[in-house]
Amino acid sequence: MWNMSLTTVMESASSRMRRDEKWGHVVYRATLDVTGATEVAATVGSGHSFTVDEPASFGGGDAGPGPVEYALAALGSCQAITYQFWAAHLGVTVDTIHIVVEGDLDLRGFFGVREGVRPGLGAVRVNVAVSGPESPQRYEELAAAVDEHCPVLDIFTGTVAVERTLTVS
Amino acid sequence: MWNMSLTTVMESASSRMRRDEKWGHVVYRATLDVTGATEVAATVGSGHSFTVDEPASFGGGDAGPGPVEYALAALGSCQAITYQFWAAHLGVTVDTIHIVVEGDLDLRGFFGVREGVRPGLGAVRVNVAVSGPESPQRYEELAAAVDEHCPVLDIFTGTVAVERTLTVS
Repeated sequence: MWNMSLTTVMESASSRMRRDEKWGHVVYRATLDVTGATEVAATVGSGHSFTVDEPASFGGGDAGPGPVEYALAALGSCQAITYQFWAAHLGVTVDTIHIVVEGDLDLRGFFGVREGVRPGLGAVRVNVAVSGPESPQRYEELAAAVDEHCPVLDIFTGTVAVERTLTVS
Repeated sequence: MWNMSLTTVMESASSRMRRDEKWGHVVYRATLDVTGATEVAATVGSGHSFTVDEPASFGGGDAGPGPVEYALAALGSCQAITYQFWAAHLGVTVDTIHIVVEGDLDLRGFFGVREGVRPGLGAVRVNVAVSGPESPQRYEELAAAVDEHCPVLDIFTGTVAVERTLTVS
């Protein structure tokens, strides 16, 4: 329903990336400051700011979503936006997109209670509900294209090289 | 500085997980609805709601951070909160924590412009700056414990099993 301009964005960006090897390399950025027991002030490269926190049961003030909730919302929203772009690209009409993401976590990993339990998510389920006039087959093709090109899904399912440095003052 | 109550949370949760095999298994959840070209309304299990969007250059309305920005902020804030818990647990005094996370992304992956380019992040850098009265060695020990137990770092550096289902109506 909003696909026209995304088609334009996608075509012009793709064309520019084919012409210019240097274009299309983006550095995303987030800055975090601890402001309470588990409260963190976040500012991202686009200029937006928001709060991360834990619920009271976890020693926090519940001033915002927790990190794992943001991670799951990042996954679900990245899926949603990738549906919008790839629907435009493939010419698939989509009326509505509703996504529920769930992730299972065993706190024994975070708290170091048991060796061998990963601190992260054991399993994630992404349930995508779309509506529109196309055949189910077309939406399956769209979903396959989305899963192949979704940045945050790739962060979850693949491994990312993370370099951590520490400065002490 | 706020470590006393986190010590209590950590000890009581750990003790309960040792006693009760069923306790400590958490399901995190996020629900997403597309509300614009690239605008997504997110609601998470703790009840908080927020907006995800892309900048105008990407066809969006810039109504909020983008998915990759949320993913990086999830990583940085998870690191920050894990510092708070593990500093409490290890008895390390930390006065301030400031973290900058950067991630490199080649848009050729997302737009399908070149085969073999991953849609996700090629590399991530986490720069942690802490201040406090302890020796640098103590903060290095703390950082090592954090990296071993940080849930979102594990999502980035490890692989997560993601099951995606599609419902068409």
